[in-house]
Amino acid sequence: EASWGMAVLRGKRDPYGGILVDSSSLPPAPSDFGRVLAASLSQWHTEGIRGVWLSLPLPSNASLLEVAVKHGFKAHHATPRHITLSAWLPENQPNTLPGPACHYAGVGVAVVDAEDRILVVQELNGPLKGRGYWKVPTGMVEANEGLSEAARREVREETGVECEIQGMVCLRETHSLHVQRLTDLFFLFKARPLTTDLTPQDSEILQAKWMPLQEYLSLPQWRPGSAPSHLNTLMVNHLEDPQKGGLFLPVALPRGGNRGDAVVYGRGRAKL
Amino acid sequence: EASWGMAVLRGKRDPYGGILVDSSSLPPAPSDFGRVLAASLSQWHTEGIRGVWLSLPLPSNASLLEVAVKHGFKAHHATPRHITLSAWLPENQPNTLPGPACHYAGVGVAVVDAEDRILVVQELNGPLKGRGYWKVPTGMVEANEGLSEAARREVREETGVECEIQGMVCLRETHSLHVQRLTDLFFLFKARPLTTDLTPQDSEILQAKWMPLQEYLSLPQWRPGSAPSHLNTLMVNHLEDPQKGGLFLPVALPRGGNRGDAVVYGRGRAKL
Repeated sequence: EASWGMAVLRGKRDPYGGILVDSSSLPPAPSDFGRVLAASLSQWHTEGIRGVWLSLPLPSNASLLEVAVKHGFKAHHATPRHITLSAWLPENQPNTLPGPACHYAGVGVAVVDAEDRILVVQELNGPLKGRGYWKVPTGMVEANEGLSEAARREVREETGVECEIQGMVCLRETHSLHVQRLTDLFFLFKARPLTTDLTPQDSEILQAKWMPLQEYLSLPQWRPGSAPSHLNTLMVNHLEDPQKGGLFLPVALPRGGNRGDAVVYGRGRAKL
Repeated sequence: EASWGMAVLRGKRDPYGGILVDSSSLPPAPSDFGRVLAASLSQWHTEGIRGVWLSLPLPSNASLLEVAVKHGFKAHHATPRHITLSAWLPENQPNTLPGPACHYAGVGVAVVDAEDRILVVQELNGPLKGRGYWKVPTGMVEANEGLSEAARREVREETGVECEIQGMVCLRETHSLHVQRLTDLFFLFKARPLTTDLTPQDSEILQAKWMPLQEYLSLPQWRPGSAPSHLNTLMVNHLEDPQKGGLFLPVALPRGGNRGDAVVYGRGRAKL
């Protein structure tokens, strides 16, 4: 196999004085990669580059991880298709590179119909399995999915019901959860149903039903002072007096500059 | 070097029918690791294990990544100290393992004093550098840090001002940002200052000052209909009529079961 001809790695400058290495320019052999990486770091240092971002495609470049780490790169985040590392070059300045995403976003939806019945499910797997615990449909928000969009999707997937999101009742922040021991942000939405037929999800839901709200609030599972009990209270506050227990309402905003679409949740639809 | 004596890897069962491999039990040599991993997968399959979580300590076990990937593990997330992979074993069931954290959480703080002056800064680096753009103190929330805690910290770090968080004005969701192209959740807080002296951060802040609110709202930088302009309007709505433009107020809840501390943000302090 011929040795790698490139002297330094290609990359794209970012607005923070950093560089994003072009993954398609990586030498596949660890020895070639080590030589080119050393030369690149030396040149970037001379040029005053601050942060360097390096993504190794997986599984094809898994063998390059060891070399990158030996040259001072730190793992930053990963997906099934790549592991991304970063290096901070300025010797006498604090590292200001952003850390990896460290929040989970989850949603729950109180779908309440005109007869004050709330849509509830029992889960097939997990810690609540077999405990007869009724809950509103919930789930994790996916990458680049909107909160409201995830809320509608989870209701549809778990129960078959289509709903219209009316606003955000509240949000809960909980630390040290899940495999990563990171922070969980849980957003409770209020919605009204557009359809009523129930087709519970085979793989995750044991049963789904429309339960009278008073029956739901009287279930023995609610521990006074707990977060679920508090969320119920905030939901009831809104149902009893929408002004006093008002929702954060979503407003979609147009794309601006190099930023993506935005949705703002707040009190009232501000005059734009 | 002696060959690795262990037949299968040790691990801890989780409540979802999965197993978390004990990282301290990993054979350091790739060849030993490959043999033990193959035997472990075979046994776990027989036992009906669903998801397998495998963390490789870095930099010491970087050379094991290639082996894990070859045995069907997918990279899930990473930190400077480890890369974590997962494998889903049931052949005819959909993979229900949670994905990696895919949200950034950021905070901004409108610190407004009794004379209607707002605390603003100009940043030293980044896309706004040299544009004369005034903004409220902002920053990223760290892993396992509370939103309110991050808000107070950023105000203190960027300006030297101590403040008391009064509540959440609104939140903004923006997609496809940062190196990871994930979703950014930005929470705008309202606070009152406890101190007034300004000591701007050398490394990140060009200047900080107390600016009359009307002057801030009249800056030419605000583009009508943009997210920053919308956030300003929601803040003013609150300042003009705290009932109508009401905040989501934080309520800290006690630790419950195996879950961490929680904070719930919603309208009003519900009777607990």
